[in-house]
Amino acid sequence: MKEKTLVLEETIVKLAEAKKYASLRDFLATLNAADIAEAFSGLSDQTLPLVFRLLPKSLAAETFVEMEPEQQATLIRGFSDLELKAVVDELYVDDAVDLVEEMPANVVSRILLQADPQTRQMINEILQYPEDSAGSVMTTEFVELRATMTAAQAIAHIRAVGLDKETINTCYITGESHHLQGVISIRTLILADENALCQTMMNPNVVSVSTREDQETVAQMFAKYNFSALPVVDGDGRLVGIVTMDDAMDILEAETTEDMEKMAAISPSDRPYLTTSPLEIWKHRIPWLLLLMVSATFTGMVITRFEDALAACTVLVAYIPMLMDTGGNAGSQSSVTVIRGLSLQEIRFRDLFRVLGKEFVVSILCGFTLAVCNLVKLLLLDRVGFPVAAVVCLTLLITVIVSKLVGTLLPMAAKRVGFDPAVMASPLITTVVDVLALLIYFEAATLILRLG
Amino acid sequence: MKEKTLVLEETIVKLAEAKKYASLRDFLATLNAADIAEAFSGLSDQTLPLVFRLLPKSLAAETFVEMEPEQQATLIRGFSDLELKAVVDELYVDDAVDLVEEMPANVVSRILLQADPQTRQMINEILQYPEDSAGSVMTTEFVELRATMTAAQAIAHIRAVGLDKETINTCYITGESHHLQGVISIRTLILADENALCQTMMNPNVVSVSTREDQETVAQMFAKYNFSALPVVDGDGRLVGIVTMDDAMDILEAETTEDMEKMAAISPSDRPYLTTSPLEIWKHRIPWLLLLMVSATFTGMVITRFEDALAACTVLVAYIPMLMDTGGNAGSQSSVTVIRGLSLQEIRFRDLFRVLGKEFVVSILCGFTLAVCNLVKLLLLDRVGFPVAAVVCLTLLITVIVSKLVGTLLPMAAKRVGFDPAVMASPLITTVVDVLALLIYFEAATLILRLG
Repeated sequence: MKEKTLVLEETIVKLAEAKKYASLRDFLATLNAADIAEAFSGLSDQTLPLVFRLLPKSLAAETFVEMEPEQQATLIRGFSDLELKAVVDELYVDDAVDLVEEMPANVVSRILLQADPQTRQMINEILQYPEDSAGSVMTTEFVELRATMTAAQAIAHIRAVGLDKETINTCYITGESHHLQGVISIRTLILADENALCQTMMNPNVVSVSTREDQETVAQMFAKYNFSALPVVDGDGRLVGIVTMDDAMDILEAETTEDMEKMAAISPSDRPYLTTSPLEIWKHRIPWLLLLMVSATFTGMVITRFEDALAACTVLVAYIPMLMDTGGNAGSQSSVTVIRGLSLQEIRFRDLFRVLGKEFVVSILCGFTLAVCNLVKLLLLDRVGFPVAAVVCLTLLITVIVSKLVGTLLPMAAKRVGFDPAVMASPLITTVVDVLALLIYFEAATLILRLG
Repeated sequence: MKEKTLVLEETIVKLAEAKKYASLRDFLATLNAADIAEAFSGLSDQTLPLVFRLLPKSLAAETFVEMEPEQQATLIRGFSDLELKAVVDELYVDDAVDLVEEMPANVVSRILLQADPQTRQMINEILQYPEDSAGSVMTTEFVELRATMTAAQAIAHIRAVGLDKETINTCYITGESHHLQGVISIRTLILADENALCQTMMNPNVVSVSTREDQETVAQMFAKYNFSALPVVDGDGRLVGIVTMDDAMDILEAETTEDMEKMAAISPSDRPYLTTSPLEIWKHRIPWLLLLMVSATFTGMVITRFEDALAACTVLVAYIPMLMDTGGNAGSQSSVTVIRGLSLQEIRFRDLFRVLGKEFVVSILCGFTLAVCNLVKLLLLDRVGFPVAAVVCLTLLITVIVSKLVGTLLPMAAKRVGFDPAVMASPLITTVVDVLALLIYFEAATLILRLG
């Protein structure tokens, strides 16, 4: 894919530099909006407005939506009011809202000024919903039908109003003051007898969400139910908008990124990496690094407490990193499995004991395998005495078992008390497991080597 | 969501136990297939077939598709041939293929026997494509139109053939021997003048994939282009199938899980956790644990080499875990950021120096913050001498910088040579960084404390 974008970008630049605008226009018209936006991302601020003006009207709007905010701002600054109006008129209202949210204040006022009054009103309505709520990601451009319409009447109505709607594939049946009564697909309408009533064909068991629902829940419902659109209703059950599948996919992608960031001890950010300043990145990373560094103090305290034992048997120090790392890795495996299972709803809190039981068996299997391999290595390769080898391998076995149980318990507990389980991943597990591994190590050493 | 499923399950069990089958049938008919399947997952093997038979025909097929393979097998074993045929006839061909792939051989032969000859042929065709290829996830039930058709003719054709098609929302224009010429949406057809020709309305710049394309690439194209379906062509450009958005979403979810597993040092598995045996889980986890344990040997070697220095200044041992952990965390932050950026195509290999530069600045910011905080703690709280504090803090600063660069470089290098960057996450980075952190530590100690 990378090469395709580079080829497109080079072709565009060459044609623009040679001032072959007619050919460039024809070339661009053969491309897809997403590809054009990607190729445009390499253009200079001088070339960009020039080339953008060559795009046919509706492709221009589609491409504009796909571009990064920085380039959108560059374009808008160069637009005449008429050009801006042409783009804004072509935008679906949810894309216009995204734009308004990303742009600086002076650009926003210009955009709202150019939007027609009805669009402006819809934008303002959507802007009132809290960030990341279903209301904030929905579009208000959907098709509403009446239960008393026949299939032919419904299709005639769609033909009359469809042009401005984001989708006509799913239509909604509403009653008095827009109360949601049912859902009907364009497929049903087209395949039906012309005189069949919507009432008899619609599905009255509509799954809908409230405007205040979290966008992550909304996206997960798409994945679960295979919807192509989901209706959004207000507190009184009135249909106020729909969320479409392409938005759900974007949300799902953003939420996955957020989960991965949390799992790597980064506070989530919704800006793309390359356009984020180092200071901004630092702000998202340093709190966790500090917190985890301070937590590691406990590990130091354990070592200090057993300093004499270590001085008496210095060879023990050499195995500290291996024990800590293996414990951390074993714990991470369990925690990530549980976190992902919880997020996909494959694992629920009521499965706690089933999961604990399974992880216990797995940890014994893993622990024994590792301990036996390590024993062979310690005796044959490192040639340490049997007592030391026994201490290291016993610690390894117990650490792996304890780590896997901690890795299972922490995300489950987080879920239970309403925290995000993703935080209980590798970095935090590692820190907890380190302390436990060292305590086990020194207890084993005290017991077997009679140190301390 | 969890509570909803539990409530549904309890209601179903209560109605079934009270033998109120008529009410249970009415209750089930108000529900969504995905919800029913989830509620069914808690039913016993005795209750399940009983309750399943109460579902209306098409809801039964939809629910069947959403169920876990184990429960599907239980149902099929209890089905008469007639019942099995009723379900198989209602399945879309891609769902039938999924079923055939999951079931044991004797069940598969029964399924194929009950499928009508045309469906059987389609199933066999799809089964020939390699696992995880576009061909293996596509469906062959799509709408094909001719460029010479008018909008009215096209809609008439869709009305005639649409019932068996997985989607009619996107239709494909083909020429001689099914060569793909263009794509047209049902929306365009409905909103168009009745006499307008498909030729003039279709989009001739169709983005399509080859049957051999990797399914992950296919899913990413959905996320990028916002398609609702993607045509699949054979080596000669003939349209052989389509991938629909609901399948793309499932693939995207599975690929995300796979990425997360790799990032936690687990070999990916495509079975749900709760139905995987401990031995199977062990097989997916132990290779990485062993590999990483062996790699940690190097860390032990570094410590052994500096054993004398450590014996001369035992306080240094207490800070080893903190330095290793902080290095690992700092490196993980960078590697996960880069891995996710690469997978979303927000970062490309050509951005290497831009990313390295940015991470370098961030690492200096993070390193200084951590070193200063740690210096205060060491001097005021731990009350170690200034030389030891200087060694620890200098090591911390350099380790954070080195870790972030390693965390950036390794995934980028993996991408370059065609490996999956996800493998270069926390566990591997931690092991590499451990060795580096210790080497830096002992070099700093030798230099400042004149040990060794």
